[in-house]
Amino acid sequence: MQIAILLYDGFTALDAVGPYEVLVSLPDTQVHFVAETAGPVQTDTKALTIVATANLDDIPHPDMLVIPGGGEGTMQAAQNKRILDWVRSAHATARWTSSVCTGAFILGAAGLLQGVRATTHWASRDHLAQVGATCVPERYVQHGKIITAAGVSAGIDMALLLAANLAGEEWAQATQLALEYDPQPPFDTGAFDKAPDNVRDLVRTLMRARAEQNHAMQASRITTTSEGGLQS
Amino acid sequence: MQIAILLYDGFTALDAVGPYEVLVSLPDTQVHFVAETAGPVQTDTKALTIVATANLDDIPHPDMLVIPGGGEGTMQAAQNKRILDWVRSAHATARWTSSVCTGAFILGAAGLLQGVRATTHWASRDHLAQVGATCVPERYVQHGKIITAAGVSAGIDMALLLAANLAGEEWAQATQLALEYDPQPPFDTGAFDKAPDNVRDLVRTLMRARAEQNHAMQASRITTTSEGGLQS
Repeated sequence: MQIAILLYDGFTALDAVGPYEVLVSLPDTQVHFVAETAGPVQTDTKALTIVATANLDDIPHPDMLVIPGGGEGTMQAAQNKRILDWVRSAHATARWTSSVCTGAFILGAAGLLQGVRATTHWASRDHLAQVGATCVPERYVQHGKIITAAGVSAGIDMALLLAANLAGEEWAQATQLALEYDPQPPFDTGAFDKAPDNVRDLVRTLMRARAEQNHAMQASRITTTSEGGLQS
Repeated sequence: MQIAILLYDGFTALDAVGPYEVLVSLPDTQVHFVAETAGPVQTDTKALTIVATANLDDIPHPDMLVIPGGGEGTMQAAQNKRILDWVRSAHATARWTSSVCTGAFILGAAGLLQGVRATTHWASRDHLAQVGATCVPERYVQHGKIITAAGVSAGIDMALLLAANLAGEEWAQATQLALEYDPQPPFDTGAFDKAPDNVRDLVRTLMRARAEQNHAMQASRITTTSEGGLQS
């Protein structure tokens, strides 16, 4: 079995690595990290780089796709014709198509969420209707062969469900034990409904700051490029 | 603030990426992935490669160390003099020294766990005494400025506690909300005490198979090397 995890500039690391760590131990399974071009791909924070092991064209028909989310990088990937063509064509023959967090908007941009019940990061749920999806605010939502997960860490929970489907419950349970996934977060503020107002306000400020930082980085790259006279 | 996450051949990806995703958003903080040599570092499964952004010598005095675990690669890192020297010297000036999973054995090999209450992956807990530690089978254990986490996914919980210590509870809670870390695993088999016998047996078989696969890979590398007449 081939599992393809899509990487693109600006994805969120845990969106990809959470499901990877669950799925990589499935029997007779190869996990490939695919990108437009194989090689290093920077995450949203620029602090972490993961190596894509394959070009999109190398893995045209994976048995499962995993599409991670992110911030601005995700919105750019959702406008990238090569990525969208690959997602559409891989989905056509895949057994499962999955997304984590705002990765749902890449599926949506590929036209795969029309009339589909889906979820995404809590801060982006209101926008799911724009890609034709019906938002279901759950940890993960299955609709036919499409399964979408909520924000970032939800990919781990979703992947355990997929592991159970693909290799049986006993196997998925053993994977959970191998990863000692017995979560005990020190706080109970992981869902919007559970977080007090001050925490909600702070996270919005942080997410805005991250977005602005990315804009600033992009602006500085454009400036550098035009000073150097190079095409980006 | 500088946070150094150690990478070495054969580390487990989620051990490093879980804490990274929590800690990278702390205010005025830079996260560095450090290795003996900056550049690509392969994880335990060989399916995922993460790029180390710095050499050990580049980050001699981080404010915090994070030492991920793994299988055989971890045991090799625990015999690597350069790594152990760096861990010892970085620990001397750090505010926090942390490990995830069997990363505790690297701290132990560096002599840092003598008389320290600590934890590690459930399958390795019985060996903690060999490095002078007192095993406390909890999700994470703090003793002075050393904090050790249980297996793989426990690094996320530990990092949230560290975030609260470094930037305040509100900040840690906002990070948890940003990562939508409201875990809802589909099974309740993530701790040894909770898993039924058949799941315990299967996970032991899987872990043994992984270890044997690594041995086989290593053997094939040695064969290739001697055939090719190269020194590894």
